[in-house]
Amino acid sequence: MQDNAPQAFRPLGDMAAPDGSGRVIIENVWPEIDGGRTPVKRVMGEEVEVWADIFTDGHDIIRAEVLYRAEDEKDWRRSPMSFVENDRWKGAFPVAKNGRYLFTIEAWRDVFGSWVSEVQKKKAAGQIVTSEIKEGVGLLIKAAKRTTVLDRILDRVGKAAGGSDEQLGMLLDPFAAKAVSDSAERTNLSRYDRELVVISDRIAARYSSWYELFPRSMSDDPARHGTFDDVIKKLPYVQAMGFDVLYFPPIHPIGRTNRKGRNNSLKAERGDPGSVYAIGAEDGGHDAIHPELGTFEDFRRLVKAAKEHGLEIALDFAIQCSPDHPWIKQHPEWFDWRPDGTLKFAENPPKKYEDIVNVDFYNGGAFPSLWYALRDVVLLWAKEGVRIFRVDNPHTKPLPFWKWMIREVNLLYPDAIFLAEAFTRPKMMRALAKIGFQQSYTYFTWRNTKTELTAYSTELAGEMGEYYRPNFFVNTPDINPVPLQTSGRAGFIARSTLAATLSGAWGLYSGFELCEAKPIPGKEEYLDSEKYEIRAWDWNRPGNIRPHIAALNRIRRENPALQDFRNILFLNAWNDAILAYARLTPDRKNCVVVIVNLDSHNRQDASLEIPLWEFGLPDNAKIEAQDLLHDSRFTLHGKVQTVALDPIERPVLIWRLIPPAP
Amino acid sequence: MQDNAPQAFRPLGDMAAPDGSGRVIIENVWPEIDGGRTPVKRVMGEEVEVWADIFTDGHDIIRAEVLYRAEDEKDWRRSPMSFVENDRWKGAFPVAKNGRYLFTIEAWRDVFGSWVSEVQKKKAAGQIVTSEIKEGVGLLIKAAKRTTVLDRILDRVGKAAGGSDEQLGMLLDPFAAKAVSDSAERTNLSRYDRELVVISDRIAARYSSWYELFPRSMSDDPARHGTFDDVIKKLPYVQAMGFDVLYFPPIHPIGRTNRKGRNNSLKAERGDPGSVYAIGAEDGGHDAIHPELGTFEDFRRLVKAAKEHGLEIALDFAIQCSPDHPWIKQHPEWFDWRPDGTLKFAENPPKKYEDIVNVDFYNGGAFPSLWYALRDVVLLWAKEGVRIFRVDNPHTKPLPFWKWMIREVNLLYPDAIFLAEAFTRPKMMRALAKIGFQQSYTYFTWRNTKTELTAYSTELAGEMGEYYRPNFFVNTPDINPVPLQTSGRAGFIARSTLAATLSGAWGLYSGFELCEAKPIPGKEEYLDSEKYEIRAWDWNRPGNIRPHIAALNRIRRENPALQDFRNILFLNAWNDAILAYARLTPDRKNCVVVIVNLDSHNRQDASLEIPLWEFGLPDNAKIEAQDLLHDSRFTLHGKVQTVALDPIERPVLIWRLIPPAP
Repeated sequence: MQDNAPQAFRPLGDMAAPDGSGRVIIENVWPEIDGGRTPVKRVMGEEVEVWADIFTDGHDIIRAEVLYRAEDEKDWRRSPMSFVENDRWKGAFPVAKNGRYLFTIEAWRDVFGSWVSEVQKKKAAGQIVTSEIKEGVGLLIKAAKRTTVLDRILDRVGKAAGGSDEQLGMLLDPFAAKAVSDSAERTNLSRYDRELVVISDRIAARYSSWYELFPRSMSDDPARHGTFDDVIKKLPYVQAMGFDVLYFPPIHPIGRTNRKGRNNSLKAERGDPGSVYAIGAEDGGHDAIHPELGTFEDFRRLVKAAKEHGLEIALDFAIQCSPDHPWIKQHPEWFDWRPDGTLKFAENPPKKYEDIVNVDFYNGGAFPSLWYALRDVVLLWAKEGVRIFRVDNPHTKPLPFWKWMIREVNLLYPDAIFLAEAFTRPKMMRALAKIGFQQSYTYFTWRNTKTELTAYSTELAGEMGEYYRPNFFVNTPDINPVPLQTSGRAGFIARSTLAATLSGAWGLYSGFELCEAKPIPGKEEYLDSEKYEIRAWDWNRPGNIRPHIAALNRIRRENPALQDFRNILFLNAWNDAILAYARLTPDRKNCVVVIVNLDSHNRQDASLEIPLWEFGLPDNAKIEAQDLLHDSRFTLHGKVQTVALDPIERPVLIWRLIPPAP
Repeated sequence: MQDNAPQAFRPLGDMAAPDGSGRVIIENVWPEIDGGRTPVKRVMGEEVEVWADIFTDGHDIIRAEVLYRAEDEKDWRRSPMSFVENDRWKGAFPVAKNGRYLFTIEAWRDVFGSWVSEVQKKKAAGQIVTSEIKEGVGLLIKAAKRTTVLDRILDRVGKAAGGSDEQLGMLLDPFAAKAVSDSAERTNLSRYDRELVVISDRIAARYSSWYELFPRSMSDDPARHGTFDDVIKKLPYVQAMGFDVLYFPPIHPIGRTNRKGRNNSLKAERGDPGSVYAIGAEDGGHDAIHPELGTFEDFRRLVKAAKEHGLEIALDFAIQCSPDHPWIKQHPEWFDWRPDGTLKFAENPPKKYEDIVNVDFYNGGAFPSLWYALRDVVLLWAKEGVRIFRVDNPHTKPLPFWKWMIREVNLLYPDAIFLAEAFTRPKMMRALAKIGFQQSYTYFTWRNTKTELTAYSTELAGEMGEYYRPNFFVNTPDINPVPLQTSGRAGFIARSTLAATLSGAWGLYSGFELCEAKPIPGKEEYLDSEKYEIRAWDWNRPGNIRPHIAALNRIRRENPALQDFRNILFLNAWNDAILAYARLTPDRKNCVVVIVNLDSHNRQDASLEIPLWEFGLPDNAKIEAQDLLHDSRFTLHGKVQTVALDPIERPVLIWRLIPPAP
């Protein structure tokens, strides 16, 4: 072992550079997910709060800035950070545009600022500071070489007697001192070693109210296939309930081979329309419209009419193909052929899905031609004015594909939003959001008790909320929630209220507003599901909750606190059947309290806490409140209130709290 | 906007490659600190458990391996990971050598394994699988092209009828199936995108018992400066208490300019030896020995004698210089000169340290020559056989310097251990450990109540324990803990017991075993501190706790559970003055229960819980126990036990639990 043999200087990354980069430590940066590998999500107009531990050796004063830029900008913008406590610093920057932003942090030692602080302490202790004043002048001269801003100060200081109190006074003058600090070279400048990504989406990614319907059921006649024009006639109905997104399951030609019959039977009867998810037939595939619905011309008219009704059209992107899909002949290399020359049906052994086959993303000939084709399908519909895509079962397709495709589409259409329809294990749910999906389905339909709802909403509002945006659907064509099958109307009111006030985005599948819940016995499936047949509905069915849905969406529109999902505050309510929570805007100007009776069969009472403390009010204060469902106003006296919620009369309460002007 | 203009394929990092790399997701890897920027620490002989979320789209079976290697090895070694639950996988690898290890993870889709699983399900559901068998044979043929291992299987399968049950049986044979899976190409192989670092230290980094003394006080005569030979005479005394590290404050020549007098007075009297921290005089600097202590020859003899007494010498590395340090003349460019040509004393305004000046690490001429010189000081003492360095105030020197220097020294001496003597804000304490210090001083002396001790030990044992190894010193020349100033002997017994049984590494500064606690009134400082004068001690002072210290170190040596700090389990004890905890080895074979009366003045009783559950025993089980301080054996009946601890008679209990053989 050659102990003292001369060695070349071995720098360690950025940590041992002559300029002292790395001397100021920047770590524990927030928001940073997965060590910076996962972008965080915001909506346009929001501020991104940035936190970091920033410190250095010794006692020198340090300063720090957030550096940020939109991805397509060349130069960093800068925003100062400020010390909070315990070496923790905080800054912020706005995301104004739709697209990606990058940010990082710089910090440095403020040598002049440190000099000011030291000389003030010495002066206060009565020490002689003549030599210190000379040091200060030296720092001023050095800084003045970099800018003309300091010329006047330099001139005045130069004229005063060297080392005099007069000179010291000029240097310590707050305006002068700040000017010198700002102009001086940034000593031991450190840059955080990662550039972190923020995706800035439009508000609909976080706040939107979805209504799902099967266009083919819009004729109001089970014997006649509905058309886009029938949908246009239904727009006022949907608009009246206050929705802003109108979503259709696939609208493409439906295959004939192995077509499914009613209630998912293996054999279709004559006239059965088949599952809309068996995409592709002679008439075309994902880039075509089922002829019975209409033409592209009709579709464009529908998009336009929807817009006039305040509704944005969302389409389904379901990658599987029926055995009749044109791609199978045109691109056999995209599919997984068996040794016997047949195609492998989709299956989850021993279950088989005989009416669809899956593409194979990594088949020899499929990469990247298949990827292009799928992306181009989305781009085609985007060109037709569609900017929201609900993606069917994304967890059964490769994540690298989604990451690539969503990025590709967003580069052309930053306003395109992809909703991941995955109901699978938690880590896959999260991974889909991490690699790019702007919005995600959730476990909401299976979260029914107070404990479940509290835990789940709390989880979503935590670190997960940085990248995962929930859409609380109360039902879907695949999910006829078991509790609603026996709850009656009260359950529908409670569940819609929960969804609409716990999550920024929520949705329902048509029929819910009519309290439809007839199941295939023992299953979570709807009986006579529209997935396999054309239905006609009585849109004015007695007991429908259309007015309640309309009220929910109105209240959401009028109260910004309900347009997010992370600002949740669960309230003490001493009854496990009563769930109470507040939603607050960061400035506390808007506060909505929601109280829900989770028991659809019995009247429940509870004492509960009104969050007076959030407004700095004592427990015995009074506060004005407005009942947002019935528009009455009243005064609440004290923190603890008692409510009684009857499933028939009043299963939920939604109050706006109006704190006294400060 | 050119919607459908042809675009080049834009890959996204590793995520969209034709081989499907990235298709299997590997994330949330543990241990990974600061997104992989901070190495984790282990000791030689340990296993590193590696955890990760690993999953992919669809239902395919996946497999995963930990890849690991010592830094100086070229090829990765591999260790299989296994599925635990909820997409979480676990693996492990050993760190055998002293030095750095790297690890990462690979995972892939096991296509043949997936085929086996599917075909078994289909067979069980009574489906015809002729085509599947052909697929399986195809996979076998493909795998067999890569290895001769499969030749025999291939031969047998080839002779059986195509698509027959016989062929299927051969393919599903567990040994054959495993061989095919193992040999087949790893489909969609993903590699985690970071290589994470593990520092493998020798055991002393985690488990050591330190005794600190001032060699100059070892003459037992305040009028005579002690020598290394005097220290040699004291080795049996230290050895008898069971310590294994003997640490000295600086042993270098002491400056004369502005020498401090007794009790830190500004003016030294004739004969005052000065502060050992005012390093450097005519006789030399950091690379020299204070002449009154002895010569290098004497030092070598001491190192050798210490080793013979089971003691390793630890030296102090304190970078500051007295105004007489030779470097000041030889290397003026390493120091911060004031405009008036004087040197800036060390200060923390308005406090001044007139007997020392600091080097300036980034002064024009100091980088890197000063850095080399400081490193070479450490290398010099390492060459003299010293492998443990207690570093004085590292938080007032640049962290990039420490990171570089420790790495440099460890490249030559992987067994060198640096202990950070920082008592500062929590994030700096942690940062020093993150950038390389193998061991750290702690807040232990200021953690006295049950709540404080529980919270602090729990914090250390958490994520922090991955990189921060505590050394619980009960006192230091700078810290005469306030509670001990009035606690009497019981407090010394309690605090040494806590330190020795809560932390793998612990230490005391001589005098503690004599219950010395005379303060400068109102301060945490010792009166007549050895920092500024030569003291003589009565090593047999009545009431000394030498036997208790010896017992603690013996118990630590005999019980591996006490040689770590992360295996802590606090026990319910229904009295805030009684702290009870268990320490367990991972295999549960060694379990020590410690019960401490934190009240040095009053007898305290408590009911407490013995952790029967850790051995799978019911609450009413009995368990054998051994009193390790008094070597009695007895049987505990049931989970809840009651103890009474009297400060005079018995302030602490240390029991070993001996569970029944399984």
